[in-house]
This record gives sequence, C-alpha cells and structure tokens, in this order.
Amino acid sequence: MLNFTHCVPTRFVFGRGGENETGKYLKELGATKVLIHYGSGSAVRSGLIGRIEKSLADEGIAFVELGGAQPNPRDTLVYKGIEVVRREGVDFILAVGGGSTIDSSKAIAHGACYDGDFWDFFCGKAKPVKTTPFGAVLTMSAAGSESSNSCVITQEATKTKRGLRTELNRCRIAIMDPELPMTLPPYQIACGATDILAHMMERYFTTTEGVDLIDHMCEGAMTAVVNAARVAVHHPDDYDAQAQLMWASTIAHNDTVGVGRVQDWGSHQMEHELSALYDVAHGAGLAVVFPAWMRYHMNKNVMRFAQFAVRVYHCEMDFQHPEVTALRGIEAHEQFLRDIGMPLTLKELGAKTEDIPALAAKTKKTNPDGTTGGAFPMTTADIEAILRLADH
Amino acid sequence: MLNFTHCVPTRFVFGRGGENETGKYLKELGATKVLIHYGSGSAVRSGLIGRIEKSLADEGIAFVELGGAQPNPRDTLVYKGIEVVRREGVDFILAVGGGSTIDSSKAIAHGACYDGDFWDFFCGKAKPVKTTPFGAVLTMSAAGSESSNSCVITQEATKTKRGLRTELNRCRIAIMDPELPMTLPPYQIACGATDILAHMMERYFTTTEGVDLIDHMCEGAMTAVVNAARVAVHHPDDYDAQAQLMWASTIAHNDTVGVGRVQDWGSHQMEHELSALYDVAHGAGLAVVFPAWMRYHMNKNVMRFAQFAVRVYHCEMDFQHPEVTALRGIEAHEQFLRDIGMPLTLKELGAKTEDIPALAAKTKKTNPDGTTGGAFPMTTADIEAILRLADH
Repeated sequence: MLNFTHCVPTRFVFGRGGENETGKYLKELGATKVLIHYGSGSAVRSGLIGRIEKSLADEGIAFVELGGAQPNPRDTLVYKGIEVVRREGVDFILAVGGGSTIDSSKAIAHGACYDGDFWDFFCGKAKPVKTTPFGAVLTMSAAGSESSNSCVITQEATKTKRGLRTELNRCRIAIMDPELPMTLPPYQIACGATDILAHMMERYFTTTEGVDLIDHMCEGAMTAVVNAARVAVHHPDDYDAQAQLMWASTIAHNDTVGVGRVQDWGSHQMEHELSALYDVAHGAGLAVVFPAWMRYHMNKNVMRFAQFAVRVYHCEMDFQHPEVTALRGIEAHEQFLRDIGMPLTLKELGAKTEDIPALAAKTKKTNPDGTTGGAFPMTTADIEAILRLADH
Repeated sequence: MLNFTHCVPTRFVFGRGGENETGKYLKELGATKVLIHYGSGSAVRSGLIGRIEKSLADEGIAFVELGGAQPNPRDTLVYKGIEVVRREGVDFILAVGGGSTIDSSKAIAHGACYDGDFWDFFCGKAKPVKTTPFGAVLTMSAAGSESSNSCVITQEATKTKRGLRTELNRCRIAIMDPELPMTLPPYQIACGATDILAHMMERYFTTTEGVDLIDHMCEGAMTAVVNAARVAVHHPDDYDAQAQLMWASTIAHNDTVGVGRVQDWGSHQMEHELSALYDVAHGAGLAVVFPAWMRYHMNKNVMRFAQFAVRVYHCEMDFQHPEVTALRGIEAHEQFLRDIGMPLTLKELGAKTEDIPALAAKTKKTNPDGTTGGAFPMTTADIEAILRLADH
C-alpha cells in the first residue's frame, strides 16, 4: 500500500427533494449572489431551475443564470461565465446538471479568481491557488465531479480536451436527489453507469500490492453498479437502483475506492481524444476503449484481471489457466455493456479507421519517456494497437 | 435507501513517517500553541512524543503536554485538560494515541469552549455549538475516532459511560502511520480489529432495503478486516496488514460503509455497561456481546444474517434452510474471534452473573417506549436474555 493524503470536505445532501432546500444550504455557506449554471433547456422546462430559484429567493439570495453547458464542456462558455461572475459580483456558483455542467462551473470558479487566461490551468502553464466557492445539484449519475478533484474542459478551436486535478476542484456541497435522473433517456443512464464503472476500473487495475481492503470495497462497488445499471436502464423510475448509481458516481471518483495505489487512467486519456474529435458521450467512448485496453494489457498482470473476473462478474476461477478466467471477465464486461445498450466498436461510435494514428499520437503522455502515466504505461504504438482492437 | 447527509472534512495523511511532519501540517491549520494529549508513558518512551515535539518546535509552534488518558477515558482527566487549555491559551489539541485519547481530546476541545460542565453534552443537558480545533496522530487501529462524529467518556464516580454524536467531533487532521501499532501487544491489536468489525456490523445489520452498494462495500471491508486481523495478530510487523486495519478503522466509523440505512448500535450500548463496570477493553466486550446479540436476533431477519455468512465468511448458502447458514456465519465469526485471541463469554471477561440484571437495566434506551434505538430495538428483558446467552 502506498502513502496517501485524502480529504473530501464536500457536504453531501442525499435523497428525495433535497434540491428544494438549496437556498437554506447555500445560506449556511454564506452565499449572497449565486450564478446558476446549467445545461440544456430541460432543466428549465422540468421546473427544476424554477424550484431552485424559489428556494434561493425564499432565503433572500440573489441569482443570475447561465445555461448552455454541453457534454464535453467548452472553453468558450467558461470565458462567458467568468465574465458574468465578475460583472455581477457572484460569490457562489451553483451547477445544476451532471459532470459537464459541474466541470464548466469549476473552470469558471477558478478563472474568475485569476488574472490570466483560465486555459493556463489546463495546458499546464499555471496552477490555480484560489477559487470562487461552488457546489452542485446533481441531475445525472456519471462523472462524479460533485466531489472529485477533477475537471475536464475542451478547447473548442483546437478540439483539445484536457483535465485539471487540484483540491480546489472539490464542491462545497453536493445536493443529490436520485429522482432527478429518472427522466434521462436510457442511453444516457447507461453512459453514466459506464463512466462510473470506468472510474472504479482505472483505480482497480493497479500494480500496487497490499491493497486488499480497497480491492474488496472496489469490487463490491463495481458489482453493485453492474446490478443497479441493468435495472435503471430498463426501469428508470426504480428509486433504489438510481440511488445506488448516484452514490456510486460519487464514491467512484473521490478516491473512496482508490486510495493507496498506483492508478491507471490510460483509457480515460484515450477516450478524451475520441470525444474531443467526434463529440461522442464520454461513457460511450469508454465502453469502446476499456475492453480493448483490457485485452491488450491482461497478460501483464493476468491474476489481477482474473480477480476482476471472479469477484465482479462471478466467473469461475480456472486455476490452471488464469488467462482463460481473465478473458471470461472481459467478455462478461462486454456483455454487460451490450445489455445496457453501449457501443463496443469504433464504428458504432462513428469513429474512422484513418483517424487512429492521429488519435494515438494526440493522447496525452505524461511520463518523461513519452508514455502515458499510470499502472500500465503506453507508447503511441500501444495506443494505436488498442484502438485497432476496437476497430471492427 | 434512506435520505442522508454526510460530510467528513478530516484531512488524512496516511503512511510511513507522517508523524514526523506533524508541525508542518499543524502550521497549515493555523496552530500556534498545541496541547499534546496522550495516554501511557510508552508514547514518551518510544520517542514518538519527542519526534512530534521536535516537528512542532521546527515550525515555531509552542506546546504543552498532558498524559494519562486511559482506556474508557475519564471525565476527571477531561476537566484537567480543559483547565490546561484555558490556562495556557492552547489553540489546537493534538491527540497522540487511539480512540480513548482522541475521545478525551474531543471532550476537552468542546468543554474548553463551554461555560458550563462539559458532562452536560454527554448526559443530554446541552449540545456543543463550538469547539477548539483538534487532530490526531493515531497509534492504534480500532475506534475510528480519528474521523468519526462520536466521542465516548466515562464518568468515574458513577461508572457511567456515555457517547456524544456531533459533527463537531470530526478531527481536522488524522496522521496515520501503520508502523506505529506494530509495537502493541497482539491482544490489543485483536481488540482493535474486533472494534473495527463491530462498527461495520452495527451498520450492516439493518432493516433498510435498497442498500446494495453499501452492503457490498461493507461486506468487502469486513472480509478484508478478517483477513488482515489474522495476519496482524501473529505478525504485527506486517505493514500491509497493519495498513488495511488502520484505514479500515477510519472507514468503519465515519459512515463510508453505513450511509442511507437504519443502523443498530445495541451491542455497543450493552458493551458500554460492561466496560464501564469492569474496565475491560471495549473490543473484548464487543467480542462477548456481538455473537450473543446475533444469535438472539437472527430470526428477525434471517436472510440478512445468511447474507453476512455467505458474503463475509464464505459459508455455503442453504437455500432450503437459511437459518442454518445464518448460524454458520455466527459460528464462523466466533471462530475468527477465538483465532485472534478474543474472549467469548462473560466469565472470560471477568463479568459476574449476578450483575446481569443491573447491566441490562442500565443499558441506554433511547426509544420513547423504553427500548434501545436502532434496527433491532431491545427491552431490558431482551438485553438480559442476550447477556445470559454469553454467560457460560
């Protein structure tokens, strides 16, 4: 087990109707003027934004709105948000949406406290040292941005998608009502579940030993996500299934199931290029990349992939041929993804064979030797080979 | 799944040697004068207190010492600590020890900010609204006080042991070095592991449905604790085993494996009376109480006890006779407790048959109908019957 520091100061308010008390919670946090940042008009049409605004007004908290946050949130809207925060004297940013809206809010919050271009934080030119307080009313279970230290933004002009990790990225409050995602299309629920699982899997496929506790917790959480996703996709009004997915989205990405170990994140880096170029849903991209990534790497630590197969998908262990068990686990994962309606090939995603070399070349490499960071470092050639495994 | 709020703002610094940087971390928290509160002289003799004091001095932080915290920490020392904090102008309390020292520190921290008698908080006369900042260098894996919202103090004169739950009980920082518990006697390591497991089991034996995610995580965590305890008791220098136990102590009692459900805590209430009267180790008392509690209650929710047996102790499910499986799980738990050297009977604990009625009568009942709170409410007669099950 590796040394680690861990701190998740987010206050979680979980359950039915919590959003109707947003004003009360934000008042406790000292908010006097709130930027309500959201995505599509559906949050307005459903009455959600109206209910939140009423609760703010009831507490005497002023607010302004900024809609239009998109999947793979754009730098262009972040610039607009920063301008609004400064002009209006906003002292709290409230994201109403999923990971994209929350990430957009985080970038606005940091950028509003910075004299330079906020993109400096994402291209590695500068580190944020201060931010505007922010929180979220979560409407979909997926990215875990409601308490993670992550934020991912796409530079529209260059189609470059880059992440920023900092403790400043933790929400002050996350209001989580599992009824809100019930109106999402099944495809989006499935994309969310795939993202949740991927966040756990990026942490799970490690080379660190002596991590039995987090292994068991992570395996248990993955099992529960697989179970809940199968239900929620077909019965989106199942409260308990939505509740498991919503809490899983949070613990999947705030390191509850990932402390003390080398993690990977190669699949995420690869997927970022897919969604930046084709603007596909992040979860759909992960559904295509991750099984190919597993097939490519499984022989580097076959017992860990066998452990995944046995403990998450309940495959029988073949003690003489653990690689057979490992493969059964990958097949079971693919079957699960199919069952919930996810794509498994680049073609289904709308990606083109001829783009593969460029996608591989552009994937972020953080190691000095030009490989991706993490438990299973990859060269451009490795990434190209994995993408070709998914190109059928 | 029930609605919940959850917030654990503690900063965890986990790994080898973290205690040597205590000064740096406390400076970041604004400490200028620290009360170092500890238990026995072993923390001094081992050089631990000296290393911590050096790290404080290196950062220009002043300090005073108060030793003498005992298992089942006493109100008498809390009064003394409050007096020291006020007289010396202490602005940060650092517990160096396990749950008893941390709980003693919490009570001092709250009491120093209160004009009345701090015991008011424990007997229900008043609620704390303010506290002195405090943190911990953990030296044993057991109570989870380093990030829980709990604190338990014993009133020496009346041998009354009472708990206080408040969000003010969360440590600002917990410095956790798994090497520190390596010098503890195996019996104390075993008591700690029993306490950790009991914290998980109090949360696990619920009547709430739709909690699959936390169930799986809790079961995984319990499995890992059982595995690690068997190793650590016989090989206390096994770093990974100590690391699993130390992190498990934290997540067992800060609700990571307990959100969204009715919990029980009847066994803890019963044990408090045992350790208050006989001054036995809390973990040893729990080892005696919990299996008897399980035998007494299993038929009220036999499938949950069977689930525990199958998923934690890998018993085979008897689908025709789930009560047989439930019983096998209890027996497996008893066998585990025996293996790590825990007592299983009141006699082994030094408790007397003639005290049973008084122990049962004194056990805290929080329900208006005079039963204990939680998932499996108990009358005095129920408690007496359970204690008699353990009296052989």
